[in-house]
Amino acid sequence: MEDALLKELLNVEDSIEIKVRFNDVDAMGAVHFKKYLVYFDDGFVSFMNNIQDPLSVENALKSGIVFPVKKVDIEYEASAEFGDHVIVKTRIKSIRDTSITFLHDIYRESDKALLAKVICVRLVMELESKNLVNVKQFFSKFV
Amino acid sequence: MEDALLKELLNVEDSIEIKVRFNDVDAMGAVHFKKYLVYFDDGFVSFMNNIQDPLSVENALKSGIVFPVKKVDIEYEASAEFGDHVIVKTRIKSIRDTSITFLHDIYRESDKALLAKVICVRLVMELESKNLVNVKQFFSKFV
Amino acid sequence: MEDALLKELLNVEDSIEIKVRFNDVDAMGAVHFKKYLVYFDDGFVSFMNNIQDPLSVENALKSGIVFPVKKVDIEYEASAEFGDHVIVKTRIKSIRDTSITFLHDIYRESDKALLAKVICVRLVMELESKNLVNVKQFFSKFV
Amino acid sequence: MEDALLKELLNVEDSIEIKVRFNDVDAMGAVHFKKYLVYFDDGFVSFMNNIQDPLSVENALKSGIVFPVKKVDIEYEASAEFGDHVIVKTRIKSIRDTSITFLHDIYRESDKALLAKVICVRLVMELESKNLVNVKQFFSKFV
Repeated sequence: MEDALLKELLNVEDSIEIKVRFNDVDAMGAVHFKKYLVYFDDGFVSFMNNIQDPLSVENALKSGIVFPVKKVDIEYEASAEFGDHVIVKTRIKSIRDTSITFLHDIYRESDKALLAKVICVRLVMELESKNLVNVKQFFSKFV
Repeated sequence: MEDALLKELLNVEDSIEIKVRFNDVDAMGAVHFKKYLVYFDDGFVSFMNNIQDPLSVENALKSGIVFPVKKVDIEYEASAEFGDHVIVKTRIKSIRDTSITFLHDIYRESDKALLAKVICVRLVMELESKNLVNVKQFFSKFV
Repeated sequence: MEDALLKELLNVEDSIEIKVRFNDVDAMGAVHFKKYLVYFDDGFVSFMNNIQDPLSVENALKSGIVFPVKKVDIEYEASAEFGDHVIVKTRIKSIRDTSITFLHDIYRESDKALLAKVICVRLVMELESKNLVNVKQFFSKFV
Repeated sequence: MEDALLKELLNVEDSIEIKVRFNDVDAMGAVHFKKYLVYFDDGFVSFMNNIQDPLSVENALKSGIVFPVKKVDIEYEASAEFGDHVIVKTRIKSIRDTSITFLHDIYRESDKALLAKVICVRLVMELESKNLVNVKQFFSKFV
């Protein structure tokens, strides 16, 4: 991947709004901690479909390319409840040969309070062979 | 509840669009059968917030009023996959003293194929006392 | 399928115990209504692995045979909470050419209170071709 | 908390076995990455109920004490599939005034392959007041 393309990718920021469902909330009355993984997964899909074509993640799956999660670091700062909307802001922190590191910041829409900060490392993999795909090649082809 | 109000309620049809998440899909590559309960629950919330105020279900929960599900009949006609959008169309079939029967028809957005037909009976209940609330009174107050 | 085998299948009753997770419970403090679909799905797997070999459902999936749900009727009688164990009792109500109708009764373990009654119709399907498999042939081969 | 008690807590290791459900698996045929949060949450409950009484987490919730997750670091090493059993091994890494750091190692039962390594920081909180509870006091009372 040329430096220009890399630089361009690092400058993209995607933002997506998600409505908290009744079923996202647990017996503490707050969104359950595992649900944030679903929220930032939405952020990942939105980011990828934003820089590529609108169904690129869906089409990648159909053509046998998947994006397994290798690592998640998540820090919870505040909690959301039923009726809230959350905003997931996604950008790429770094790209290595076989991994992409995403940053997802999750906010409450109403008061812009930070709910969670996420670092998520993903791979690009051929589902059938389980072979990793070179990330820079993957982006060169699609972006 | 006066007949006019009842008649009005039976004429409301709500429609909401939901994006299928990667995580909604199971190892068969199709939306898992339990996820349709989440989809029509979204339809229920949308219907109620449509006829009342935009946060009526959320505010009811805060004031201690909940809508437990008493019965679900669901027939699956076709399946959705990751990348699809589904449409949930919701209307009321009947209102009795202590229950509301909803009809939810769930379609695939792209080709309008019917995915599932749902009959769902809900109660209105005070969460703390577990006492049922008279449905017609509930609607009279809010609609 | 010979009548003897059919009769035998209709006499099997399987019972499985499941611990309610914190995450199964919603903001009402009770197990969310969609979770019962996961519970009786456990009952289905247990029933099938009981009459066949201990991994028959898992192995069927590996060999491309799946059991899509065609219809669910569920009536909720009482609710479970975090800390409860539930018992799912499963038997077959009827077997037709291309469908099996299961009955699942879900109880609270501590006081044997009935929580939900389920009728669930399942198909047997080849995942790749989407062709239905004749149910009686399927059982003849495996039982 | 006396040093003896602290030392004792750091020596406890809990182990719990969990059956992977069909519904835990995603369209990649592997357990979805968010499900590991449910698995190690089971490990947390098992650990606490092991060192205290068998329903201590459940009873804490009833008395208004909850254990919100502050931070999760999870590294995925291999994947599990439908039919697998996973083992969650849980121990305490450190105890501070207002937080407990748990280590959860998640293995596949059949071949003892490591699936995921987790560091999870939890708080002890009064649900109604949202006040944090001093962790050492909490343990002194219960252990």
